[in-house]
Order: sequence, then structure tokens, then C-alpha cells
Amino acid sequence: MDLLKARIMQDGRVIGNNIVKVDAFLNHQIDINLMQAIGESFYNYFKDKQITKILTVEASGIAIATMTALHFKVPMVFAKKAQSVNLDGAVYTSKVYSFTKKKSYDVIVEKKFLNGDDRILIVDDFLAEGNACLGLIDIIEQSKAQIVGVGIAIEKGFQKGGAEIRKMGYDLHSLAIVDAMSEKDGIRFR
Amino acid sequence: MDLLKARIMQDGRVIGNNIVKVDAFLNHQIDINLMQAIGESFYNYFKDKQITKILTVEASGIAIATMTALHFKVPMVFAKKAQSVNLDGAVYTSKVYSFTKKKSYDVIVEKKFLNGDDRILIVDDFLAEGNACLGLIDIIEQSKAQIVGVGIAIEKGFQKGGAEIRKMGYDLHSLAIVDAMSEKDGIRFR
Repeated sequence: MDLLKARIMQDGRVIGNNIVKVDAFLNHQIDINLMQAIGESFYNYFKDKQITKILTVEASGIAIATMTALHFKVPMVFAKKAQSVNLDGAVYTSKVYSFTKKKSYDVIVEKKFLNGDDRILIVDDFLAEGNACLGLIDIIEQSKAQIVGVGIAIEKGFQKGGAEIRKMGYDLHSLAIVDAMSEKDGIRFR
Repeated sequence: MDLLKARIMQDGRVIGNNIVKVDAFLNHQIDINLMQAIGESFYNYFKDKQITKILTVEASGIAIATMTALHFKVPMVFAKKAQSVNLDGAVYTSKVYSFTKKKSYDVIVEKKFLNGDDRILIVDDFLAEGNACLGLIDIIEQSKAQIVGVGIAIEKGFQKGGAEIRKMGYDLHSLAIVDAMSEKDGIRFR
């Protein structure tokens, strides 16, 4: 998606060889026009898939999921993050290890919000090692709903998440795939 | 706002005398049509106020803030929550005590996303004791931006936040104000 790539080039800030800060437009301050275009882009790609629900994880996936749900005219569900879980049987949970924060957390969705008839599109702002996404996939599989695809704004193509999710057979659509980055040479897209 | 009140009556679940669970449509699963109407409602109320930015706090305010920003065609910023803060001088922070979670946390916004020329609309899903909202007000005051108003989906009118914020002189617009609730008698709106 050219608009997103151009914005990353213009306002993204590369730190070291594997962090690109996009907090000026994607995940702290949100450019609503860009977000609108991202939602539209996911809609154009997945529109024939009879999607019934959009799933993401708090917090930075919520704005993208909201704009995507608006285009599909379906409900959005965001998984909650917690370090310990109320295991009363009313929730689906999956354990996720965060490389950024160097600790594990649970992603949690109430059972009543996912069911076997649902056709789910997962969306998120970033895909790197893929752990958060794999947690959402695990939760959807527990619910017997169908995973129709995965929409990602920025995939770090030099980390293993994208390859792994494609190898599992999921239709992963990333709007920008970064294959390499450095402070000196900037960003190279796939 | 009649649509929101009707939905609270239909799908809200009262627990004890001061909790109403609205996670089926407002803050876990999101009804995107309702969210669209909430954004429109805030726009209609505040549209003449030259608002330049929408501010909320993660996570449950983000969907409302996204839809509100879409109507105003301005950027949205969400404050992050953390228990300890990177005090490198590049962020505004304010300490907030959560009665729900019985602990304090910091709300954090990077300084570069708020400035003295901004005219800010604060939005959030709930207002009860008002601590999160007062934290956002504190941050905006630190930035010298102007607080144009506060838009809340559900105000718990029997807790002190709403009265306090109105007494401070802010234009607080709540779409549904709950004056009393109980499992036996249900919800009474103002």
C-alpha cells in the first residue's frame, strides 16, 4: 500500500536495525485519513470472504480494527491483555511471549463473542515474531470459528512471524513489508 | 442519546449497585454502527469548537476516539498507561488512581503530540470517579493546549467525576447519565 509506505518513509524513525517508530501516525497519534485508507485496503482485499467479525488485540490494534469493521459493517472484538486470568471458564485465553517487553501475558476473549459460525479477520498494526497473532489464532481455533485471513499494517519481513503464518496456510495480507532497516540506510521494502 | 440508552437497557448487565457491563457492544465487542452514531453525536455537539485533536486513554476509549476523529477529520491521540515511566523529559505524565483495579498507574503522552495551539476534545467510554479524565486534563494543561470539552459515552451520575469536572468549568457532554442502578430495579437514567 503506497500511502502507508510513503508515510513510513516520511515520518517513521528507525532505531538500530529492527525498530521503526511509527507513533506519529499509527500507534500513539493516529492519522485518521491513513487509518481510513488502511481499513479500505483490508476491505478491498477480503471483501468477498463473508467476514462476520474483526478480531484484534489491545491497545494499538484497536484503531485499525475499528476502521476495518466500519468498512465491513461487522462487529469488532479486541482481545484483552492480562498477566493472570480469571479462569471461570467463560473466556478463551492464550499465552503470548512479548519480545519487546521480555515477558509473557495472556490474551483473553469472552467466549460469548466468538462462535462456530463466525468467519474472522484478524488485524493488527505490526507483525514481527508473530506471537500475538498466533495467540489470536489459538483463541479462534478454541472457539471453532473460522479464520478467514490476517491483515497487518506493517510486517517486519526479516523476523519469522510472517513466514510462519503463511506456512500454516493462512491468507496473510500485509500492507507494508519491511525487509531490512538501519539508521544509516533507512528502510527497504519487499 | 436514545440509541445508546436503549442499547444499555437491552444488553447492559447490572452487577450490584454500581457496575453495568457493556462489553457486548461498547468495550470488548464493539458494535460499529453504535460507535459511528456516538462519534456523530459528539461531532454534532462540539462541531463549532475548532477542535484540532481528539484525546483518549487506552484501551477502551480508542474505538470511540477513532470514530470521533473520523467525524472531525482530525488526528486522535491515545494516552498510554504504565506503572513506571521513562522520565526522559519527552513525555507528559499524570498519576491516576483506578478504583476498579485498586492501584495507581501513569497516563503518558509524548510531548510532540500536544502543543499550545491545539484545541482538544477528550473522549472516553466511562466517567465514574473521574480520575482518568482528570489525568488527561492534567496532561493537556501541562502542554498549554486548550481543553475544549469532554465527551463521555456513559457517565455514572451517582459518582463524583461528572459533578467535579462540570464544577471546574469544562463542557462535559455525556450521552447517557446513569443516576441509579440495581440488579432488582435495573437502570435509571437522568
